Parts: sequence; structure tokens; C-alpha cells
Amino acid sequence: MKRYHKHDERSYTLGITVTFEMLQLHPELVTHVYYHTEMIHNETFDRIYFLCQKNQIPFVQNDKVFKILSEKENCFVIGEFIKSKRDVQSHTNHLVLVNPSNVGNLGTMIRTAVGFGFNDIILIRPAVDIFDPKVIRASMGAFFHIRFNYFDDFEVYHQSYPQHHKYLFMLDAHQSLAHIHPKTLYALVFGNEATGLSNQIKQLGTSVRIFHLNTIDSLNLPNAVSIALYELTKDVFQNELGDRNE
Amino acid sequence: MKRYHKHDERSYTLGITVTFEMLQLHPELVTHVYYHTEMIHNETFDRIYFLCQKNQIPFVQNDKVFKILSEKENCFVIGEFIKSKRDVQSHTNHLVLVNPSNVGNLGTMIRTAVGFGFNDIILIRPAVDIFDPKVIRASMGAFFHIRFNYFDDFEVYHQSYPQHHKYLFMLDAHQSLAHIHPKTLYALVFGNEATGLSNQIKQLGTSVRIFHLNTIDSLNLPNAVSIALYELTKDVFQNELGDRNE
Repeated sequence: MKRYHKHDERSYTLGITVTFEMLQLHPELVTHVYYHTEMIHNETFDRIYFLCQKNQIPFVQNDKVFKILSEKENCFVIGEFIKSKRDVQSHTNHLVLVNPSNVGNLGTMIRTAVGFGFNDIILIRPAVDIFDPKVIRASMGAFFHIRFNYFDDFEVYHQSYPQHHKYLFMLDAHQSLAHIHPKTLYALVFGNEATGLSNQIKQLGTSVRIFHLNTIDSLNLPNAVSIALYELTKDVFQNELGDRNE
Repeated sequence: MKRYHKHDERSYTLGITVTFEMLQLHPELVTHVYYHTEMIHNETFDRIYFLCQKNQIPFVQNDKVFKILSEKENCFVIGEFIKSKRDVQSHTNHLVLVNPSNVGNLGTMIRTAVGFGFNDIILIRPAVDIFDPKVIRASMGAFFHIRFNYFDDFEVYHQSYPQHHKYLFMLDAHQSLAHIHPKTLYALVFGNEATGLSNQIKQLGTSVRIFHLNTIDSLNLPNAVSIALYELTKDVFQNELGDRNE
């Protein structure tokens, strides 16, 4: 057992919630589940035990694993799984992240994307490793709902999915997110945390922005992504379920 | 020089952007600016030097300070300032955070709040220390735009600002954020990252939620806050500035 490295064949779910989510959705990928001596034997623990039994997954008490893999104090369950991926679909809308550089941010964006029905995520390199245990942890298990692909270049992605109208989030765009009404398949495209999207790809889509006061330079990336996902899925999620009376 | 502690009279801006923002907005609070040997003398460096000169603030090369105060590798400028606060205003809308527990999240929420014109923030204890250098860093300097107050109890806040209609973000609310149209002063109230808002305060306002698929348990707190701030300020920010043509 050693620290996770991006070239490893296996990765880890750090924490009880994310491990439970994986056992429910993809038990076939799980090779081991470890628990710590200090783990409290609560209901979730029992359910994890049951799922491991059912799927013949070794469920092992091993404190050393936690020292190696987890820096967090409140992590008492770790799952080990075989890295495996499903390709994005071509008939669904995409979330495209160009050069995402922060593992926590990527996990958070996956969580919100899944919450709004965006299960197909494209990453343009250089980009963080989506299998990094910190991504999976920050996604709160939503990671196990997504399909994803890496591309070396945004243009190659664009050519591979020409039907998707590309909405490019750029700080110098004139058009507001609030005024776009996609009528075809589309992809929401966001740049790197610090540098945004390059002007070079402008002609490949429609530039849009989320307007805010210039007291701040930009919105935090996961916050901007959340706002866009909310706005574009609002007719589906907020109207059908919501109550129109105040 | 020692590590920051919440009872200290001074706090720190870690990084060039946030230090520059402070020097521009509140030079009167700054006691020292430190820079690292490896600092590249770029344009921002020159502007910081100029602002320190102008305001008679010592501008000191000192690598030791960085070892003590900053864990990040890319931090080459640190500002030291006197902790000082301005009380929230009663004629503006409020953002109320009940028991926020994560310093990075608080900084991110401050950044987005300021971007959408919410400069008055209430924190209900227990809550993280808003002067923590990690909050200020995550706010990217937006911290220096806000006014804030801590309260021990939500009810005391409620009684202190009875004119504000309280919108309580709760996962079991029936009403969608998309359907509220505040006609008076209001406060957006969000609970703790893990536990949300207590049912006990339900009668003090209107419960609302942001609907999403139940494939996730909840949205990440800063993402939920961002969506709410965007939605409620949309008429101001997205319509006036946006372009209606697609």
C-alpha cells in the first residue's frame, strides 16, 4: 500500500458516504473496503458490511491504510476500486472543462453537474486527474454517476462533437447567460481557474458571460459553473417541481 | 512573528492580489507588507511598493514570515493588518450564514456575494473566524468590501432586523427559489455545510429550495449561495448589461 499516483490502476474512496455510494452504484469495481478501529458501528457501517458480503468484497480493519491515504481526521472508511471509465454520450448536453487545475473544484463541479442532470463531462488537457481520491471525495460520490473523456485539444473535441453548440464562458463576452435559450444539443465550456478560456477558440461557439460588479475580477469557477447549470436547466427542475405561490 | 490565531489583533493577506486589494481599499489598516526573495519585480510589485511608500507602510524583504504564515508555494507577498470591522447596514439585503464551518467556503461566498452586490454578511455562531487568512485569501480580496456581524443565535439576529424578510434555504422546502420575488428588504439564510438549517427556525421566514435531482443529497454550500444570489439579482445585473440577441 502506497500513496495514490495518477498512473496507478486503482484509486480510493475516502470516507463513508462516498464509499457507500460506490458500493451501491458500482460494486463490480470495488476490490477492498477498509475500516478504522475508531469507526463507529452505525447504520451506514452495517449497510456497507452487507454490501461487501453480498458482493464478496473483502471488508478489512486496517488502520495503516488510513495513515497512508487520508490526511483528514474524520475518515474511517476507505474503498479501493479499479479505475474504469465510460465514454461520454453524443446525444446529451456536455460540460467541458478546459485545463481545470484544482482537484477540490473538479469534485464540486461534478457534484453540481450530476445534481442538474449533466452526467457527461469533457476535460481538456492539461487537467487534473479525475480519479484523484480528492476529486472523488469532493464529488461526494457523484463521481460514480458520470461519464467522461479527456481531449488534448479543445478543437479536437469540437470536431468530434460538431452537433453540440458551444457556449464559451468568457469575461469579455457581451451576451448574458440569462438570455441564451439553446434549441439544440449544447456544451457549456469553462476555462482554467486563473486564466479562463483562450480567445483563439472564440469562433467555435457563442461567447457568454455571467455579469457581476467589477468589484471582483471574476466568479470562482465552480460557482460560475453552478449558476450556468442552474439557469439552463431551470425550466425543467424549478418549474415542474416548484410551487408557484409565494 | 507566529502563526495566526483568532484572538490576535492582527491578521494577514497571503498573496499579491489580496494584498494589493487591501492596500487600495484600506491602507490605513496595514502595518507591514513583506515580500519574498523569490518575488518577481513585476508591475503589481511596483504598484504595491508605490502604495506602501505613499501610505508610509514598511515594505520589508523577509523570507521567514512566509515559512511561518503561508503553506502555499506561490505566495510571495504578505500584508499584515489591524483587524477592524464595519457593522452591517439595516437598509441593504443580507446574506446570513448559520454555523459556516469551512474557511475556504466562507472566502468563496464572500467573493461571490460582493460580485452580486451583497456586502452585508451575518454569521451565526459557532462559525469560523472571518479574519482567518485563509478566508481572506479565498475571497480574493473581496473581504475588504464587506461589512459583517456575528450573532450567537439566529433568533437574536431576526429580532434585530425584523424588517428583513427571511428566506430560509432548506432541503424540504416546497417553494422554488425561481418563484420568489422579494418586494421588501430580505435576508438569504443558509445553514451549515453538513447539517443545513434547523427546523426550529422555520416559522421565522419562508422556506425555499433549489431543486435538483436526488442523485445528489444536496448542492455544495457556496454553489447554492451563488445560485441564489444570481437568481435574485438577475433583473439588475443580467438585464441591464446583457445583450438580448442570441
